[in-house]
Amino acid sequence: MKKILTITIGLMTLLSVQAQEALNSRAEIKSPQVNSDRTVTLRLSAPKAEKVEAVISTVPSPEIIVMTKNDNGVWEGSSRVLNSDLYTYTFYVDGVKTDDPSNVYQLRDVATVQNLVIVPGGEKGRLYSVNDVKHGDLTKTWYHSDALCQDRRLTVYTPPSYDARGSRRYPVLYLLHGMGGDENAWSELGRASQILDNLIAEGKIEEMIVVMPNGNIAMQAAPGENPDGMLQPDFNLPRTMNGEYESNFSEIVDWIDSHYLTKTDKGSRAIAGLSMGGFHSLIISMNNPEMFGYVGLFSSATPDRAKADSEVYKNIESKLATQAASAPSLYWIGIGKDDFLYDSNKTMRETLDKVGMKYIYHESDGGHIWRNWRDYLVIFTPQLFK
Amino acid sequence: MKKILTITIGLMTLLSVQAQEALNSRAEIKSPQVNSDRTVTLRLSAPKAEKVEAVISTVPSPEIIVMTKNDNGVWEGSSRVLNSDLYTYTFYVDGVKTDDPSNVYQLRDVATVQNLVIVPGGEKGRLYSVNDVKHGDLTKTWYHSDALCQDRRLTVYTPPSYDARGSRRYPVLYLLHGMGGDENAWSELGRASQILDNLIAEGKIEEMIVVMPNGNIAMQAAPGENPDGMLQPDFNLPRTMNGEYESNFSEIVDWIDSHYLTKTDKGSRAIAGLSMGGFHSLIISMNNPEMFGYVGLFSSATPDRAKADSEVYKNIESKLATQAASAPSLYWIGIGKDDFLYDSNKTMRETLDKVGMKYIYHESDGGHIWRNWRDYLVIFTPQLFK
Repeated sequence: MKKILTITIGLMTLLSVQAQEALNSRAEIKSPQVNSDRTVTLRLSAPKAEKVEAVISTVPSPEIIVMTKNDNGVWEGSSRVLNSDLYTYTFYVDGVKTDDPSNVYQLRDVATVQNLVIVPGGEKGRLYSVNDVKHGDLTKTWYHSDALCQDRRLTVYTPPSYDARGSRRYPVLYLLHGMGGDENAWSELGRASQILDNLIAEGKIEEMIVVMPNGNIAMQAAPGENPDGMLQPDFNLPRTMNGEYESNFSEIVDWIDSHYLTKTDKGSRAIAGLSMGGFHSLIISMNNPEMFGYVGLFSSATPDRAKADSEVYKNIESKLATQAASAPSLYWIGIGKDDFLYDSNKTMRETLDKVGMKYIYHESDGGHIWRNWRDYLVIFTPQLFK
Repeated sequence: MKKILTITIGLMTLLSVQAQEALNSRAEIKSPQVNSDRTVTLRLSAPKAEKVEAVISTVPSPEIIVMTKNDNGVWEGSSRVLNSDLYTYTFYVDGVKTDDPSNVYQLRDVATVQNLVIVPGGEKGRLYSVNDVKHGDLTKTWYHSDALCQDRRLTVYTPPSYDARGSRRYPVLYLLHGMGGDENAWSELGRASQILDNLIAEGKIEEMIVVMPNGNIAMQAAPGENPDGMLQPDFNLPRTMNGEYESNFSEIVDWIDSHYLTKTDKGSRAIAGLSMGGFHSLIISMNNPEMFGYVGLFSSATPDRAKADSEVYKNIESKLATQAASAPSLYWIGIGKDDFLYDSNKTMRETLDKVGMKYIYHESDGGHIWRNWRDYLVIFTPQLFK
C-alpha cells in the first residue's frame, strides 16, 4: 500500500511539476462549498488520518469544525450559519496544520497562511468581492528615502477615473498597517481595492488615491519582496515605533505629490491606520497639524507605547492642542470592546478631551482583528473629502 | 493526548485568529533551510504521522525526499545538491498534500499551490531574487474591450526610470501566458519583475515596458480577481484558441499606447509567450506584420492546434511569408528536448523555413516547465530593441 502510495504521489507530482498546467486531480472534491443557508462545508481527502478538524475565523470566537470521514476517505464538516463576511480557515490533520488543497485562495497574516472564503448574501460579502464595476489600479512602486538612504516600497491605489496622462487631481488617503504588517497588508487582508472600487461604484465615497506604505523602518518592502531574501516574517522588528518612521513621513507625501495627480491641500489629505498604524497616524498628524484634514485611528496603539526618546513623541498634549485648534475636518476613533488596547484607548480619549480635540468615537464588538479594520475602512472613507 | 491536542489547537487558533499578529508559534522549526553546499533541508512537525515525504521540482525529474522523524516529532530530510534556481516543493503527510507551515512563500500554478525556495550561488538564484537595485513598478490595471464589451485586467511592468508625468518613451514587450495561466502568471511564476529589474541593473537589456494581459477570453481577470468569484482555477476554459483573442489584440496595443509613454514603431514592439501564449504571439504577429519587430515563441503551441475556423487562422503560409518579407528584427524560438510540443515545433520550423522566415532556434533540456520559460525570458530580452 505504501509503495503504491509512493508511486502514485511520484506520478502525480511528475505530472504537476513536469507539465505544470496539468489538470487538477482534486477537481472532484469541492471545498469550500458555500451553501445557500450561509453555512460553509469543508472537505479534505485524508484516508489514513485519525482526526481532522477545521478552524474558521468566526466571531466572537473561532469555530472548531469537527469533520467526519466517508467511505472514500474524504472528511467533511460544515460551519454553523455565518454572517456575510470574509473568513479564513485551516485544517488540522492529526494535529498538522494543512491548507485546503482544493482552495487556492489564501491570505498571509504575519507568518501564518490560511485559506480564504467569502460568504455572500450581505453588505460585507458584496463589498469584499470583485464585482462587475469599474476598477481602480493597484501599483507596487518604490520611492527613495534620503533620510534612510534606501529605496522603499509603496502600494498605491488609483481610482477608476484616474489617468496619469490627464489633468484631474485627486485627494489622498494614507492608509497604514500594524505591527507584523507591510505595504501589502491593506490590499490583501484588508481587501482595500475591492472596498474602494465598490464604495466608489455605489457613489458612497469620493474617488481618491490610497497610499499604503511600508511602516517598518527595518524593512524596505514586504517579506520576500525585499533584498533580505525569503525570511520567515517576523512580528518583532527592530526600529519599530522609535520615531524614525514618523519623522520622515513627509518624504512619502512629497514623493506622492510629485509622482501622482494629487490635491495637496489639508482638506484633501487623510491619514489612518490600524494598531501601530493608528499610532503612526496620531503621531504624524499631531506633528504636522497642517498636513492632514482627516485622521483615523483604528484599534490604535496609544502614545504611551512609544519605544524611544524621539522628538516626535515629545510635548504630546501641546501638539494635540495645536492640532485640535487647527480644526481637522474629522478625527475618527474606532475600537472593539474586546480589544486589548481598549483601556489605553479610553485614556487616550481622555487626553483628547482635555486638549479640546473633537472626535467621532465608534465602538464595535470584537477584538484586535481584521474583521474590524475592514469595517472601519468602510465606515471611515465615506466621511472623507466632503 | 487527543484532548490535550485539541485544546492546544483551539488555543493556538484562538490566538492566531483573535490577535492575528500573534507570534509565530512555529518559529523554532526552520524550513526550508538552504545549506551552503546547495542542498535544501526541509522540516515539518507531524508527531503522529506514519510517513512524510517531500517532493521538490528538480529536473529532469522531481526528487522525492523521504523524511525521518526525530524524538520531538519533527520530520527532516534534505535534497541532493541543487543548481542555483527556483524550486517548488510540497509535503505529503500520510498521503495528504500539506504546504510547509514554516514557509509563507508560495506559488499557484493553475489549481495547485506549492511552496517556493530559491537556491542562491549562481546566475538564476541572483536573477530571480529581489536585489538591492533600482526597481520598476508593477501595476494591475484594467482596459475596456469594445469587442468583448467588458473591462479586462492587465499586469504592466514599467522600468525604474519610467515617470508617468515625464516625457521619455519606452519600447514595449507584450508577454503572454499559457493555458491555465492569467495576467499574474509571468510576474509570479515567471519572476518577470525580478528578472527585468536585475537585467536592467546589469546593463544587459534596454529599459522596457512589459505588458502581461489575460489571454483567456472567458476570464476578465485572474481567478479570484474577477467578478466570477473564487472559483477553483480551471485549465480548460471555453473560447480558448478560437481566434477571438488574436482578432482583438490590437485593442490592448492601442490602449497601452494611449495610457503609457510608449514608442509605437515596429522596432519598439515585441510579442512573446509560452505555450498558448507562443501560439498567440505567432498568430497575432503574423496577422499584423507591421506591428511587432520582435517575436518570441517559448515552448509554443503550433498553428495546427487552433480550435475554431477563424479568419486569423487562415492562409498561414502566405501570412508568414508576408511577415518574413517584412524582415522582423528577431524571430526567436525556444523549446525543451523533452517538451510534448517538440515534434510539432519541428514541423512548425519546417513551415517557417519554407516561407523564408529567418529565426533563431534555441533548444534546451527539460520539458514544458516554468524553469525553461524563465530561462527563455533571460535569453530573449537582451536581444530586444537594439
